Amino acid sequence: MRRLAETRRLSLSLAEPLSAEDQVVQPMDDASPTKWHLAHTTWFFETFVLKPHLPGYRALDERFAYCFNSYYEAAGPRQPRPKRGLLTRPSLEDVIGYRRHVDIALEALFEAGAPQRNRDVADLVELGINHEQQHQELILTDILALFAAEPLRPAYRSARGPATGGAAPELRWIDCPGGIRHVGHAGGSFAFDNEGPRHEALLREHRLASRLVTNGEWLEFIEDGGYAKPEHWLSDGWATVKTQGWSAPGYWEGEPGAWRQMTLGGLQPVDPAAPVTHVSYFEADAFARWAGKRLPTEFEWEAAAAGLPVRGNMLGSGALQPLPAPARLASGMPAQMFGDVWEWTQSAYAPYPGFRAGPGALGEYNGKFMCGQYVLRGASCVTPEGHSRATYRNFFYPHQRWQFTGVRLADDR
Amino acid sequence: MRRLAETRRLSLSLAEPLSAEDQVVQPMDDASPTKWHLAHTTWFFETFVLKPHLPGYRALDERFAYCFNSYYEAAGPRQPRPKRGLLTRPSLEDVIGYRRHVDIALEALFEAGAPQRNRDVADLVELGINHEQQHQELILTDILALFAAEPLRPAYRSARGPATGGAAPELRWIDCPGGIRHVGHAGGSFAFDNEGPRHEALLREHRLASRLVTNGEWLEFIEDGGYAKPEHWLSDGWATVKTQGWSAPGYWEGEPGAWRQMTLGGLQPVDPAAPVTHVSYFEADAFARWAGKRLPTEFEWEAAAAGLPVRGNMLGSGALQPLPAPARLASGMPAQMFGDVWEWTQSAYAPYPGFRAGPGALGEYNGKFMCGQYVLRGASCVTPEGHSRATYRNFFYPHQRWQFTGVRLADDR
Amino acid sequence: MRRLAETRRLSLSLAEPLSAEDQVVQPMDDASPTKWHLAHTTWFFETFVLKPHLPGYRALDERFAYCFNSYYEAAGPRQPRPKRGLLTRPSLEDVIGYRRHVDIALEALFEAGAPQRNRDVADLVELGINHEQQHQELILTDILALFAAEPLRPAYRSARGPATGGAAPELRWIDCPGGIRHVGHAGGSFAFDNEGPRHEALLREHRLASRLVTNGEWLEFIEDGGYAKPEHWLSDGWATVKTQGWSAPGYWEGEPGAWRQMTLGGLQPVDPAAPVTHVSYFEADAFARWAGKRLPTEFEWEAAAAGLPVRGNMLGSGALQPLPAPARLASGMPAQMFGDVWEWTQSAYAPYPGFRAGPGALGEYNGKFMCGQYVLRGASCVTPEGHSRATYRNFFYPHQRWQFTGVRLADDR
Amino acid sequence: MRRLAETRRLSLSLAEPLSAEDQVVQPMDDASPTKWHLAHTTWFFETFVLKPHLPGYRALDERFAYCFNSYYEAAGPRQPRPKRGLLTRPSLEDVIGYRRHVDIALEALFEAGAPQRNRDVADLVELGINHEQQHQELILTDILALFAAEPLRPAYRSARGPATGGAAPELRWIDCPGGIRHVGHAGGSFAFDNEGPRHEALLREHRLASRLVTNGEWLEFIEDGGYAKPEHWLSDGWATVKTQGWSAPGYWEGEPGAWRQMTLGGLQPVDPAAPVTHVSYFEADAFARWAGKRLPTEFEWEAAAAGLPVRGNMLGSGALQPLPAPARLASGMPAQMFGDVWEWTQSAYAPYPGFRAGPGALGEYNGKFMCGQYVLRGASCVTPEGHSRATYRNFFYPHQRWQFTGVRLADDR
Ligand SMILES: [Fe+3]
Ligand SMILES: [Fe+3]
Ligand SMILES: [Fe+3]
Ligand SMILES: [Fe+3]
Repeated sequence: MRRLAETRRLSLSLAEPLSAEDQVVQPMDDASPTKWHLAHTTWFFETFVLKPHLPGYRALDERFAYCFNSYYEAAGPRQPRPKRGLLTRPSLEDVIGYRRHVDIALEALFEAGAPQRNRDVADLVELGINHEQQHQELILTDILALFAAEPLRPAYRSARGPATGGAAPELRWIDCPGGIRHVGHAGGSFAFDNEGPRHEALLREHRLASRLVTNGEWLEFIEDGGYAKPEHWLSDGWATVKTQGWSAPGYWEGEPGAWRQMTLGGLQPVDPAAPVTHVSYFEADAFARWAGKRLPTEFEWEAAAAGLPVRGNMLGSGALQPLPAPARLASGMPAQMFGDVWEWTQSAYAPYPGFRAGPGALGEYNGKFMCGQYVLRGASCVTPEGHSRATYRNFFYPHQRWQFTGVRLADDR
Repeated sequence: MRRLAETRRLSLSLAEPLSAEDQVVQPMDDASPTKWHLAHTTWFFETFVLKPHLPGYRALDERFAYCFNSYYEAAGPRQPRPKRGLLTRPSLEDVIGYRRHVDIALEALFEAGAPQRNRDVADLVELGINHEQQHQELILTDILALFAAEPLRPAYRSARGPATGGAAPELRWIDCPGGIRHVGHAGGSFAFDNEGPRHEALLREHRLASRLVTNGEWLEFIEDGGYAKPEHWLSDGWATVKTQGWSAPGYWEGEPGAWRQMTLGGLQPVDPAAPVTHVSYFEADAFARWAGKRLPTEFEWEAAAAGLPVRGNMLGSGALQPLPAPARLASGMPAQMFGDVWEWTQSAYAPYPGFRAGPGALGEYNGKFMCGQYVLRGASCVTPEGHSRATYRNFFYPHQRWQFTGVRLADDR
Repeated sequence: MRRLAETRRLSLSLAEPLSAEDQVVQPMDDASPTKWHLAHTTWFFETFVLKPHLPGYRALDERFAYCFNSYYEAAGPRQPRPKRGLLTRPSLEDVIGYRRHVDIALEALFEAGAPQRNRDVADLVELGINHEQQHQELILTDILALFAAEPLRPAYRSARGPATGGAAPELRWIDCPGGIRHVGHAGGSFAFDNEGPRHEALLREHRLASRLVTNGEWLEFIEDGGYAKPEHWLSDGWATVKTQGWSAPGYWEGEPGAWRQMTLGGLQPVDPAAPVTHVSYFEADAFARWAGKRLPTEFEWEAAAAGLPVRGNMLGSGALQPLPAPARLASGMPAQMFGDVWEWTQSAYAPYPGFRAGPGALGEYNGKFMCGQYVLRGASCVTPEGHSRATYRNFFYPHQRWQFTGVRLADDR
Repeated sequence: MRRLAETRRLSLSLAEPLSAEDQVVQPMDDASPTKWHLAHTTWFFETFVLKPHLPGYRALDERFAYCFNSYYEAAGPRQPRPKRGLLTRPSLEDVIGYRRHVDIALEALFEAGAPQRNRDVADLVELGINHEQQHQELILTDILALFAAEPLRPAYRSARGPATGGAAPELRWIDCPGGIRHVGHAGGSFAFDNEGPRHEALLREHRLASRLVTNGEWLEFIEDGGYAKPEHWLSDGWATVKTQGWSAPGYWEGEPGAWRQMTLGGLQPVDPAAPVTHVSYFEADAFARWAGKRLPTEFEWEAAAAGLPVRGNMLGSGALQPLPAPARLASGMPAQMFGDVWEWTQSAYAPYPGFRAGPGALGEYNGKFMCGQYVLRGASCVTPEGHSRATYRNFFYPHQRWQFTGVRLADDR
């Protein structure tokens, strides 16, 4: 119950620097308003935990189901995704009241001992916590999308101290063996359904970069005409470059020699030592090809991460942006595996062998999105602590880049 | 100065029932957020009155020009119209501060005697007042567009008492003579540039309906298959019906026999005696053809209105929706000429003979829109008192219907 | 009957320089394949003349009605306009057979004396002839649209001799009186329904240019930044310039100093003395504003044309492109009123007072398009002789420019 | 040389039943005109074989490179794909002349002994042959797309005899072992670059259906509301169903109980015993989920096909549509592995481990499309004999269904 309460509190505290106006507007179809995130995570507990498992629970307002269902077809009709920003009502205050109403009911659920007695209920609460953590990350990425689209380029938090100006440590290549490995979540603790079943995968000998690709390296790509030469790009990627007019990562402004990037701390000079972020799969793939390397597979990444502690520059650090790798990298150990940026892999997002989506609305959580997207591994600078793990599978479409996404190179041996 | 101050105050009071959230969101490309209206009208005074005519005036924030310029190419680049709803910053509070900053400067301008001494300045202030009145109407029509798009269908004001259920008075035909008439504004008081030059127009004998078309009459059109028979429609109108899936006026919900309409007082049953509103030109034209009649020309309307007092159900009445015509219509006098709804005419919006747009940004006020739109005459239930007159030319595209637009029939004799 | 037969023959002879491949392809939504024109004009006679008036007439293939109905809702469903180019079947040969089938039936109709006896039938035949003439013009404008879109830029006919290089005659201004004029067709011979009823119109004193605007004058507009300065343009026009990337008239290629234009004779250098053509209403209006003049109204044009012989550079001349005005212009008489290019007027296309569309499908011929378009007067270099007249009203949308459209300036006095 | 000559001849003979009109029109962006296929395959030989390897070769017309380059960025600019149907010039006759010109040059190349002496040249010729075979299949699928879009629904060939009405043989499940398998092309004969490098893949025990899914089985899916229940569908698939209005496979017309399908033999009743075809990946996946099964991986398919002869209902059979499986299926052997329809696999199209695209334009042949598509295996009823093999990887986007695509089910054990 404490983790639940802390998670619920954290969402509100993330919204604190924001005005009610900031929280209602939707900057683009992919991103959602903060208020919507606050309400949707609440609806999730109400719909999947309270209604089925708290006898006598009464919804605060039955119409909220229409407003705050995201994509669960089995849970009824819903506000279309591109129109989430029209919901000036219920007001932010009412949504906070909605959160309180549900929080009180969740307390009652615990007092009645339901999660303690009933493993299914405990699992649903755990799912609700992890679901809310996902939306905590989205609150920050989506508010950045909004602030980057505003003429005044407001900052979510006051600027950090000036970058040290230090250089990134030299990139080293870590040799990784081939062979059959067990991948996927083994059970015994929480994981999303898409992380299982655990199964065997065949790896080939390969090498993995000791750290993430930096802005400095990306500038070389730009200066070498990376965004202007079709030979580096997938066909769909090249079409996207042309249509979108991309010539640099997302949120970069200005021009060669004077690039700035929009961050949660406002517009800042691009730090060459920091990991590049807000790059799409198309860009990650093109960069790797230009560099004569490739992206890792999701299982190469997982094998390398398997033994590592899940620590790094995540939400708890307060940086809210990727930071340069430590000057000294431990030999033979990849750095920055968790935190800073989600790392694109070359693996299309697909079900593991034997995967079947569960019945009912919750079966729609992950399974129905297994098409057209790519897996990202690790965690980002805005992922809540305790949320990710070595088997965690994040996924986005290859053109999307409003998340904190970045690149770790791999190579054949 | 008092009219100026009152006008400025009225804008704020129209926004009063709205939360900051309500005021920031843009429901569709055609409509703008309340906050934007409040700021844009302020920018108008700042740009066209204060900067050129108040020595030493300093803009509160030079970046606001980008945020709140609407369409004046000569006044510099601007936030794209469909993205006015992204402006969570400046905040509503800051916009109110901006209004205060400009109001104080306007006071200083008056204290310095500029408008009193300089006719040009007085004219610009007058233009600014009339401009702000236009946006007052838009504040209400645009907030209705927003609330109608929200799942909770909130009301801007508490519901009015129940409709009396009375029937509309019988429609009578008023005979109007032909011949050469002077039309357009004669000068001597404020008018927009598009109302002049005054010139001669040749009218033919015709007849004009004594009152507006009612919801009850529109229901007959619907029940006769009006929205399903291409023979009533202009080709572009029929295409719009198909594309938009129209089967009733804007904001009508429900189904035959149980129509309700979204109003500033929330969802209400459709009152058969009240004037139909939220109909496009395409619908007005189709209805007239179905009825065996036609729409009036703008000069037929103007000739009929020429002697009438500019009185009716406008913003000051507080109804905020069209009301049934008085049970007894004065013989030979058209009722509802001002107020209730803007009346579509068959006249394409075009420059009057001899019209030349003025130089500079203000020359863009009206002239550059004289293409593809139709003239509407009169005033609506949300037009501020004192804003309209017999020569007033409102204009919209033939597919638009989020304004309070309605129909008065005409006929040949 | 002879005129009918000649008209029918002319269509085929216009198609003669074209291969079957050339005749089946549709270059854009606005334009239609030659084969479709050949078949559609035939369907018109079949549907409106033969089926109702030739007892025992049997359609060659009932499915052709679906294929070749253009826009007559009352005549049943039809191939969508943008998909006219999919009709590889019926083959060109079959369409020629279809023409023969209908021609024979039309002969039979005449032999049976129907048109001679029955005025209605004669009128329908006359309408069919005039309809086919309209499509003869379209065959040429649409094939030019196709050839201009082909990488090889083929020519419809071999190139004319080199332009004389002569200069255009000096533009003079012809004074025209104001007052009430009768306009519209008086009856007594064929006219389209949109040319009536004849009625009075009030003109103001004005001046009319003695000849058309030339390419040379248009080059000045371009060189003065005409396409880059929003102040010359209507708002919708400026948006179109931006969206379409216009920087010169339609079919112009190359660059300042070396403009060439695609013509029915292939790519040619732009002749400064020839009338500018393939300009939209938006461009015509912007040019006039830039020149400190305006476009004429349709009735100013009609009044000036009223007494003139309908002669000029039309289809019969064989030039198939606009030609420079004669070096000596008759004093006080406007030149190039018929032929060369259709002349944009400032008049929105609207019904004349008292106009009512006829019943049935033929009532759709003109009336339902009276919205959003502008009237053009005169005739073009590909209008068949005998087709146009002083009261003739052509009409297009303000962004369209694949027709031979041009500009004659007017001015107030 | 003989295979080359035969391949070149076959293309022409496939075009033989078609008129010049049929061959010039493009039915949709995905499909190309027959004439374009005939010319593009010729350009391929010219560009990649003749120009670099036949000294003194002169292109027939240098402008054809622009016209007939498909997507090779390194080979210069090209006619945009959606506008391939505008090319009425060069004429079909000229394209046949172009083919002859290139064929003669290819003969000269052989006579000069280049392919015999130079392995690279021989490989390029082989690639050109295989490339042309791919376009032979496309000629037929694209002409079907055209004819299905024509109101007259013409047939490419006269109808086959009536379906026997026999039932499909009972579906059996073939047990397949797990373990490490070698997959990909081993070299030694022609294969496309995307079929290698040969590498190890880890399979799990599974079962494979003995035959393809039939129309009869698909009808059960339809009748069970398969197209109306979101729970069967991937999220993107469901969106496509809604947007496209799908309620049956491609080219099905009519309604429940009386389905007909458009084929190369014209409109035919749907044969319940024949394999379903023209289904997208989305549909294949939804069907499998509805059936409680899954699609095979590409390596499961390849392992099952590894030992089989590449025989079946392919282009040579002349059926030009999928046929029912033989009444008796060999025990333990999957039927219909080659021919009838390409079989969707659940494998996203991705590079094999170690794959690197070659340098230059030919490196663009396959590699740049490895994103967002799914692999199909086998061959279809219009694949030329000798073209496919067990390692062959075809690929399409999950929404595409104009190819002869179908479904074989798999299951876990
Ligand atoms: Fe969610
Ligand atoms: Fe304004
Ligand atoms: Fe026609
Ligand atoms: Fe190809």
